[in-house]
Amino acid sequence: MSVFTTVAPDDLRIWLKRYSLGDLVELRGIAEGVTNTNYAVTTTQGRYVLTLFETLQASELPFYVNLMAHLAHHGIACASPIANLRDEMIDQLNGRPTIIVNWLEGAPVEVPSAAQCHALGAMLAQMHRAGETYAGRMRNPRGPSWWGGAATQLYGYLNAADASQLRAEVGLQARHRFDHLPSGVIHADLFRDNVLMAGEHIGGFIDFYYACNDVLIFDLAISLNDWCSLPDGAIDEARAQAICTGYQTVRPLNQAEKDSWNHMLRAAALRFWVSRLWDWHKPQTGELTYRKDPAVFQRILAHHAADGDSARWF
Amino acid sequence: MSVFTTVAPDDLRIWLKRYSLGDLVELRGIAEGVTNTNYAVTTTQGRYVLTLFETLQASELPFYVNLMAHLAHHGIACASPIANLRDEMIDQLNGRPTIIVNWLEGAPVEVPSAAQCHALGAMLAQMHRAGETYAGRMRNPRGPSWWGGAATQLYGYLNAADASQLRAEVGLQARHRFDHLPSGVIHADLFRDNVLMAGEHIGGFIDFYYACNDVLIFDLAISLNDWCSLPDGAIDEARAQAICTGYQTVRPLNQAEKDSWNHMLRAAALRFWVSRLWDWHKPQTGELTYRKDPAVFQRILAHHAADGDSARWF
Repeated sequence: MSVFTTVAPDDLRIWLKRYSLGDLVELRGIAEGVTNTNYAVTTTQGRYVLTLFETLQASELPFYVNLMAHLAHHGIACASPIANLRDEMIDQLNGRPTIIVNWLEGAPVEVPSAAQCHALGAMLAQMHRAGETYAGRMRNPRGPSWWGGAATQLYGYLNAADASQLRAEVGLQARHRFDHLPSGVIHADLFRDNVLMAGEHIGGFIDFYYACNDVLIFDLAISLNDWCSLPDGAIDEARAQAICTGYQTVRPLNQAEKDSWNHMLRAAALRFWVSRLWDWHKPQTGELTYRKDPAVFQRILAHHAADGDSARWF
Repeated sequence: MSVFTTVAPDDLRIWLKRYSLGDLVELRGIAEGVTNTNYAVTTTQGRYVLTLFETLQASELPFYVNLMAHLAHHGIACASPIANLRDEMIDQLNGRPTIIVNWLEGAPVEVPSAAQCHALGAMLAQMHRAGETYAGRMRNPRGPSWWGGAATQLYGYLNAADASQLRAEVGLQARHRFDHLPSGVIHADLFRDNVLMAGEHIGGFIDFYYACNDVLIFDLAISLNDWCSLPDGAIDEARAQAICTGYQTVRPLNQAEKDSWNHMLRAAALRFWVSRLWDWHKPQTGELTYRKDPAVFQRILAHHAADGDSARWF
């Protein structure tokens, strides 16, 4: 469940007076989402999603909220945070920082088609281009220095083979620099469950709370690993081709990006292998953590390590 | 017809590269509108309206374009101008200043229902509230000083009875000041053809190019005169009641506004009687003018002059 903070209709009725969104018609908790409380809100004027932030503080939100507003303003399919009558996008309710955004059509897909992967790649590249004029800055909290430090605390939990594979990959990544590649604002978590699909069109990207400044093709690699992988860690060739082709219809990769592509796919797999290992072996006390199988990304990593030719998709 | 400047698909294909909106799928001229060129644009990403401004210069646009963006950002049903990759909402194409906005659902209605009038009143009041934080300023170019000056040049074209009625109304309005009433950003031209209705919901307000700072209930009076009038100039009681009730669900009128209401309805009728007389008798050379019957507003004015009790709708 994902309603951690309960909102009563009467609370919301009063709160909505701070906005130009009409009167409450229906309020319904949204089951999806593991970090924040989300409600579907229908008013006399339209449909919206209300988010109450359970861990992020109001002071931490502007980077993400301004980014969503910036991207929506440029036509990127994502929710647009609505300003209240004081012209502020971040408000509060029941002791939690809040935003309210327009409702997006669509739903996540479990097994995307090649056409959907093509649309995802194109929209991701559009997002990277639109992000060029975004002024906000955020370091990637899950970058190489994070996974390097985390790994040293994880080896003791792993069997010898897994520890060896992890140690080798952390070492290999540490010997590869990506600083010369085009960078900018990335979503950094664009898994299938963070993209609403409306048929073959992108209904919207959601959950921007890992967004940061980093290498652009790291974002593409993160998405590809989730959108195009099979249960055994192999990559579906048609989907991988489609996501990369779609991306390049908007932003063609340069040679340095193509040269780094295989290592980037491995880095993207490593990042989630480590974070899932971390959540598995070192869950935070009092934190609602959904443990997901780390081995999924271990297998994807092994697949990329064995297939050095992934730049063929470009 | 309202395509004054032709846009070829190949021109637009290149132009769209300045945005994050995908590739052109279909381009179609829009017949509605008498001042600017409008195209319906479908891309791989969505549907939009492209406007080429035929008379307004780029330097005159920021007040209107920023206002639309501000209102959309607050959840008001209106088109949101999309920024290009240089983060600018105003661009140019074929020598004309341009904007491109998201497509709005709905269509104008000829004979609105009471429920539609209620929705209009409520959304108008929401717009007035959301406008409170808008920083732009614009004098009303069709205010009392304009109609006073225009009338002196029109008397010679009118028969004695019409000239006498016009002179009397201009005089009466000159003796009434509205400076003490709440003022703010108004649309100032919210006729039925500038509101897209999606069933009983407001799909969107369009055509903000008469928007300005003025007395708020002047806006309500302008809308009521168009939305609620019958061919003989009488006002449909149910519709008038609905628009005023809808407005007050969001922003209740104060006593001074109610006291001024009948004079405001007359002022709103006078403004369009005079501008239509002007377009009829003094069309500008080389300007594409659609002459509309001035007598419509002369009859509405006469009706309000005979019915001093219009504050009953509040």
